[in-house]
Amino acid sequence: MTSTSRRGHDRTEAIMRTMLELGRETGYARLSIEAVARRAGVGKHTVYRRWTSKGALLLDSLLSLHRHDLDYPDTGDVRADLRAQIHRVADLMTAPPFGPLFRALVAEAQHDPDVATALHAQFTRPQEERTVARLNTARDRGELSPDFDLDLAMAILSGPLYFRFLITREPLTHEYVDQVLDALFAGMGPR
Amino acid sequence: MTSTSRRGHDRTEAIMRTMLELGRETGYARLSIEAVARRAGVGKHTVYRRWTSKGALLLDSLLSLHRHDLDYPDTGDVRADLRAQIHRVADLMTAPPFGPLFRALVAEAQHDPDVATALHAQFTRPQEERTVARLNTARDRGELSPDFDLDLAMAILSGPLYFRFLITREPLTHEYVDQVLDALFAGMGPR
Repeated sequence: MTSTSRRGHDRTEAIMRTMLELGRETGYARLSIEAVARRAGVGKHTVYRRWTSKGALLLDSLLSLHRHDLDYPDTGDVRADLRAQIHRVADLMTAPPFGPLFRALVAEAQHDPDVATALHAQFTRPQEERTVARLNTARDRGELSPDFDLDLAMAILSGPLYFRFLITREPLTHEYVDQVLDALFAGMGPR
Repeated sequence: MTSTSRRGHDRTEAIMRTMLELGRETGYARLSIEAVARRAGVGKHTVYRRWTSKGALLLDSLLSLHRHDLDYPDTGDVRADLRAQIHRVADLMTAPPFGPLFRALVAEAQHDPDVATALHAQFTRPQEERTVARLNTARDRGELSPDFDLDLAMAILSGPLYFRFLITREPLTHEYVDQVLDALFAGMGPR
């Protein structure tokens, strides 16, 4: 990296960190791009040059700064890896700043099709692909029924988490994650 | 009903119908209580006397005017009843005005705890209770494993619908509903 792109990278990262910090303090609804720019010590046009909306900045900040939390472990035991990964995502969704800001992001996606598309392309679909790849491995090893649709399996794993997170707002405990996983594997096991 | 309460009832219903009509035309975000009151031919205080926020009015309008779509059929065949009911809800979520306005309502619930509580108390929980009652019947008849948690079954049925509706925005087809139901009953069947 040249020193100029290094500075650009540092500034981008500083803006995203400020976004999460301010979002945590004031909540997403009351936060403005101007306020983020001010606290990050940059002009607001610097922010708008990179992000077209507050929702786009939020999405990028959440995903970039938590990239490592969203990786899958790879121990060779597919079910243990899935469990560890979903526990990690559940923990992330439970605590601030990720939890409340992710909730705000999903809300924003309901009104703003660009945010919905970006959320799906940058977060949901890559997560889905990683999960389906793991399930595929499990199926190849005979741990899952060969005729179970893996996209459906993904929806059965993710759906109940979103249901609690967005609708009933009950806590996303590890126990709940385990129940969902157990139910899925029971239903998907080879007959 | 006395003629006074009849008039009150008609006015309440007219306001709710106007809410859905205007919501369909302009979208929830751009709609104001003032505009609803104006088109319904009442003062805005008449609206505020009954509903404390735009979200509360939307929730009430969606649920009251679609009460009949949210009832369960009762043919004696639990699985067929569940399927028919979830098909109906999926159709409702797919078409305007219910679909886009319900999406807006869920978004509102992420920012407004009163709307979240009311949505859960008036919509999700009653739906959940009705569904769990049906699953209970199926369990009593030996169609479901006696040790399967029925609240979990509810989350596995509803979660994937919300996941598509709110996150991936793929269509809520009857085929998808059937896949989820089949997977659930396969996993929940007596061993």
